[in-house]
Amino acid sequence: MISLTVELGERSYPILIGSGLLGRAGLLDAYLSSRDVLVVTNDTLAPTYLEPLRAMLGDARVEQVVLPDGEAHKTMDTLQRVLDRLVELRFGRDCTVITLGGGVVGDLGGFAAAIYQRGVAFIQVPTTLLAQVDSSVGGKTGVNHPGGKNLVGAFHQPRLVLTDTDTLRTLPDRELSAGLAEVVKYGLIQDEAFFVWLEHQADNLLRRDPASLHHAIRRSCEVKAEVVAADERESGQRALLNLGHTFAHAIERCAGYGEWHHGEAVAAGMCMAARFSARLGWLRDDDVRRIASLLERLQLPVAPPDLDPREFLAAMSLDKKVLAGEIRLVLLKAIGDAVVTSDFPDHLLLDELRAAFMA
Amino acid sequence: MISLTVELGERSYPILIGSGLLGRAGLLDAYLSSRDVLVVTNDTLAPTYLEPLRAMLGDARVEQVVLPDGEAHKTMDTLQRVLDRLVELRFGRDCTVITLGGGVVGDLGGFAAAIYQRGVAFIQVPTTLLAQVDSSVGGKTGVNHPGGKNLVGAFHQPRLVLTDTDTLRTLPDRELSAGLAEVVKYGLIQDEAFFVWLEHQADNLLRRDPASLHHAIRRSCEVKAEVVAADERESGQRALLNLGHTFAHAIERCAGYGEWHHGEAVAAGMCMAARFSARLGWLRDDDVRRIASLLERLQLPVAPPDLDPREFLAAMSLDKKVLAGEIRLVLLKAIGDAVVTSDFPDHLLLDELRAAFMA
Repeated sequence: MISLTVELGERSYPILIGSGLLGRAGLLDAYLSSRDVLVVTNDTLAPTYLEPLRAMLGDARVEQVVLPDGEAHKTMDTLQRVLDRLVELRFGRDCTVITLGGGVVGDLGGFAAAIYQRGVAFIQVPTTLLAQVDSSVGGKTGVNHPGGKNLVGAFHQPRLVLTDTDTLRTLPDRELSAGLAEVVKYGLIQDEAFFVWLEHQADNLLRRDPASLHHAIRRSCEVKAEVVAADERESGQRALLNLGHTFAHAIERCAGYGEWHHGEAVAAGMCMAARFSARLGWLRDDDVRRIASLLERLQLPVAPPDLDPREFLAAMSLDKKVLAGEIRLVLLKAIGDAVVTSDFPDHLLLDELRAAFMA
Repeated sequence: MISLTVELGERSYPILIGSGLLGRAGLLDAYLSSRDVLVVTNDTLAPTYLEPLRAMLGDARVEQVVLPDGEAHKTMDTLQRVLDRLVELRFGRDCTVITLGGGVVGDLGGFAAAIYQRGVAFIQVPTTLLAQVDSSVGGKTGVNHPGGKNLVGAFHQPRLVLTDTDTLRTLPDRELSAGLAEVVKYGLIQDEAFFVWLEHQADNLLRRDPASLHHAIRRSCEVKAEVVAADERESGQRALLNLGHTFAHAIERCAGYGEWHHGEAVAAGMCMAARFSARLGWLRDDDVRRIASLLERLQLPVAPPDLDPREFLAAMSLDKKVLAGEIRLVLLKAIGDAVVTSDFPDHLLLDELRAAFMA
C-alpha cells in the first residue's frame, strides 16, 4: 500500500492505493467522526463489495442506499433519494457518507455529503479505473442537468480516498479503457515521460498487469493531487485537467448521456483538441498521430460520432468552461505541455468541427 | 452609509448599511464578475424594488426569477426553478446572482448560487429586518426538507451585502417584530450593554425611528460578523447564534412551516432556553422575566403553541445541532453570556417541555 497526500491545508487528505485494502479492518476508523455511516453504492457493485466494506466498519451503524447503475441516474432526483435517506435516518452533522463505486456514485454521493446539513464528511472508495485516477480525487462533486453535465454541484473534499486495485480485476474491458483515457490525459497535460511510459506499457495495461496498473494509478493521482493543491477551485491551472472535456461533454450531450462512456468521449475529445491545436500551428502533426495511436491501442475512440457541427458548437458553449460567452479550451503546445486558452478565431473552431464531422 | 467588513481572508466582504442605497448607480459595479446577472426575488417585493435594483445595474444583462412569497416555497422544487433558469440563460461561471428579499429568497437564491456550476458569485440585498440583521450575513444558504428546516444547504459567502434601511418603512409590523427577535438575540448571547440599550429603545424601534433601527442593524451585523469571522463553518462559537433556534425549529416544524414566522419562533424559543437555563440554576428568574418582558414589548410571543412535549422533543432531535443523538442547546449563564452545551439531564429538558406546554 502506498499513501499520497492531497495538500489542501486543513482539508488535506490521503489517497491510499494498494491491493487487498477493501475488507481490511481498522483502515477507516480514523476517518469517521461518529458511528453513523451511510454507504452510497449501486446495484452492480453492491453484491460484490458491500460486505467487505461493512466488515471494515466494525461496530459502526452502517446504512446504505443502493442506486441504479449508470450515468443516466446522476440526477437531482437520485440526489434527492440520498438526502431523503439521510434525513429519514436522522443522521447528524457528524455522520460520514462513504461512496463505493465509480464516478457517478462518487460525484452524486459526494454532492449529497456536500449539501446535507451544509456539509458532512465523506470517504471515496472508487472501484473503477476512471474514478481511481480522476473523479475520486480533488473534491469535485455534482449531478447532471438536462442542459449539461455537472452543471449543479459543489467542491467538497473527501476525508480519504481508498483505492483497492483488486477491484479492477472484474472491471469490464470498456470501463478499463475509459479509465486509461484519463491516465493518458495526465501525460499529455504535463508529463511527457509518463506519456512515453504509457506508449511502452499499453499492452500490459490492457491485460491488467498489476504492477503497470499500480504505477499508472499512482502517477495519475500524483499529477492530479499536485494540480488540485495548486488550484483547488479551478481559477487557473486546474482547468488543464479538462483537456478534451469541452469536446467530450458536447459528445455526451449530443449522443445522449450514457451512450458514450465519459472516458471514451474524453479520448475522442482529446484527439479533437490535439487536431485543433495542430490546425492552429501549435502542435506537430506527428504528435497528433502519436496521441491517436496510443488511444487506439487502448481500445478508445479517436473521433466523435456523426453530428451536426453547429449543434455541436452550441453544445460546447453550454460547458462550464465558457466565460462570458467565450469558449475556452485546453489545447496542446506539445505532448506534456497544455494551455488554457480562448485565443483562437471562432471560425477556425467551426472549420475544425466541420472537418471532424466529415471524417 | 456605513460599511462593515466580514473578515474571512480571501472571502471577506463588506456590508453596506444606509438609507437610499437601492437605486444608487454604480454601487454594485465592483462586485459583478461579468455582465450576466440573475435577480432572485419574490412576487411581493418585485413590484416595488425590482426597478430600482435594475436601475443600479446599468448595461448589465439583468434577468430575473420571481418566486412565490413565503417559507413554504423554500424547497428543493423552487431551487430547481432557479437552477433551470440559470441553465436556460446559459449563464457561465462568471455570472452573479442577486437575491432581493427576505430570508427565504436570500437562503434559496444563495444556495442556487452555491451549487450552480459548483459556485458562482452572489450579492445579498436584504429587504426585511430579519434578513438584514441575520440571514444575509455569514454565508449560510439552503432550503428546507419535509424532515426539517435548512437540512440541505451550503456555506457560500456573498460578495456584498447591501442593506437599504428604507425598505423597512413598508415592512409589515409582524415582520418588523420578527426581525427584532434576532436583534435581541445578539444582546443575549454576548452584549449585555446592547440588551440594555434595546430595553430603552423598544418603543422607538417599534415606531421605526430611523436612527434607532440603523444602530440596531449595525450592532447586530457587527456581532454577527465577528462571530462568523471567528468560526465560519460553525465548529464552535458560531453555534451561539443558534440561541433559541433548536426550540424554534421544533415550533416551526410542529406548527407547520409558515404558520409561525421564524423570528416569532425564535422569540418563543429564546424564552424556552432562558427558562430551561433558570431550571438548571444557571440564570436568575429575574433575568428570565427581563427577557420575556422585552420580547413582549416588541410584540413577540414568549411561549410555544400548545403541543405534545414528546412530539416536540422528537422534533428538536431532528435539528442540525444534534450530534450523535445528543441534543446540544445554546443556554444562558447571564444576559450577554451564552454557552453551547449538552451538559444537562434529558429528563430535566422533558420536565421543562411539560411545564411549557401546560402553561
